[in-house]
Amino acid sequence: MINFEALYRISYGLYIVCSGDKTRGNGFISNTVFQVTAEPPKFAACCHKNNFTSELILKSGAFSVSVLNQNASSDIFGRFGYKSGKEFDKLAGMNVKYGDTGVPIVIDESIAFLECRLVETIDVGTHLMFIGELVNAEMTDDSKEPMTYLYYRKVKKAASPKNAPTYIDRSKLAENQKYAFNKYECPACGYVYDEATEKIKFEELPQDWVCPACGSRKTDFIKL
Amino acid sequence: MINFEALYRISYGLYIVCSGDKTRGNGFISNTVFQVTAEPPKFAACCHKNNFTSELILKSGAFSVSVLNQNASSDIFGRFGYKSGKEFDKLAGMNVKYGDTGVPIVIDESIAFLECRLVETIDVGTHLMFIGELVNAEMTDDSKEPMTYLYYRKVKKAASPKNAPTYIDRSKLAENQKYAFNKYECPACGYVYDEATEKIKFEELPQDWVCPACGSRKTDFIKL
Repeated sequence: MINFEALYRISYGLYIVCSGDKTRGNGFISNTVFQVTAEPPKFAACCHKNNFTSELILKSGAFSVSVLNQNASSDIFGRFGYKSGKEFDKLAGMNVKYGDTGVPIVIDESIAFLECRLVETIDVGTHLMFIGELVNAEMTDDSKEPMTYLYYRKVKKAASPKNAPTYIDRSKLAENQKYAFNKYECPACGYVYDEATEKIKFEELPQDWVCPACGSRKTDFIKL
Repeated sequence: MINFEALYRISYGLYIVCSGDKTRGNGFISNTVFQVTAEPPKFAACCHKNNFTSELILKSGAFSVSVLNQNASSDIFGRFGYKSGKEFDKLAGMNVKYGDTGVPIVIDESIAFLECRLVETIDVGTHLMFIGELVNAEMTDDSKEPMTYLYYRKVKKAASPKNAPTYIDRSKLAENQKYAFNKYECPACGYVYDEATEKIKFEELPQDWVCPACGSRKTDFIKL
């Protein structure tokens, strides 16, 4: 028996994984970044095969990981988390630094970053797991805590987008629930607030709560 | 330039990864467990090649992951984190359940567990990355929060053991510090908190932190 609720007990941070170069870069919000060996320091990042960033990592042979701070704005999640970079330049107007490998590194809302040279690509099914050897690691803001996935879910009230390794089909969670939940949709961006996943009734959310994806007001949401 | 301090900004949970069977089981404390695909749900766990558990995972073709609760006792870290199971039976006297695959699952101090059937083993250097497809996931205690690596480091004041993917040699940390480490003295008992040894800035310690020797308040400490 799989109780999908148990999957939420695995802890993650939240990152912007970027790749490409000065002419064309892109990044996406990831929660599955982790160290795989200490000597030498190597990190893995999982990326959906359809993500534009996967294409750029394979082409440039490198990627960067910016660690988001706990209070990172919903703007950054809207920009990097729920939209595809195939259609627009996510990095336009951002504070971006270019690493030794040439990849862009997002500095906005970060507390630290890693830069890795790709050493192995593993096909894990719907996703590619990129393993990179660390070439640079820097602190960008020592005063803030890292954003965790738990904090993002509980305090920011947001969920994984469909291409995330940790995406959970809401109907699967509902199977495990004994009572009925409602869903509310953001008319601007299509983000769905699902009481089954969030475990907080929509009406109980504070009046100044906004769409975590695009910032629309709570009162604009439509009950599905 | 690699500032090893930045590596501490990657978030992890803390788990007991187990394998084997009823006649001989073993487990170790891991912080690098993560989901790699959603459909089907697959998880990865990194384990040092020298760890006894690696041998058991390869033999049995399955592993379990018990998610530790935030207040897990230091006994469990002593038993599973810093000793080898080659010499003694770590599971003796523990509350252990056996999964569909036959692997032991530690219930003590857990809030949830996952059971995975091994589908791929990737050699990542000093470690093996085991990728398993989820066959069971259950909640064991819904009232507690998961232990995070950050909490373990900051509140429990502990570090990764030598075989962990996230082990950091303290001398490397010191090399990368641009700033000098400071020392803080307890005016009551003379205990000195040395940032160079503790690897945690004094100001990052929680406000309710007290002198480990005499219990004086953090705010009473004097910078040397």
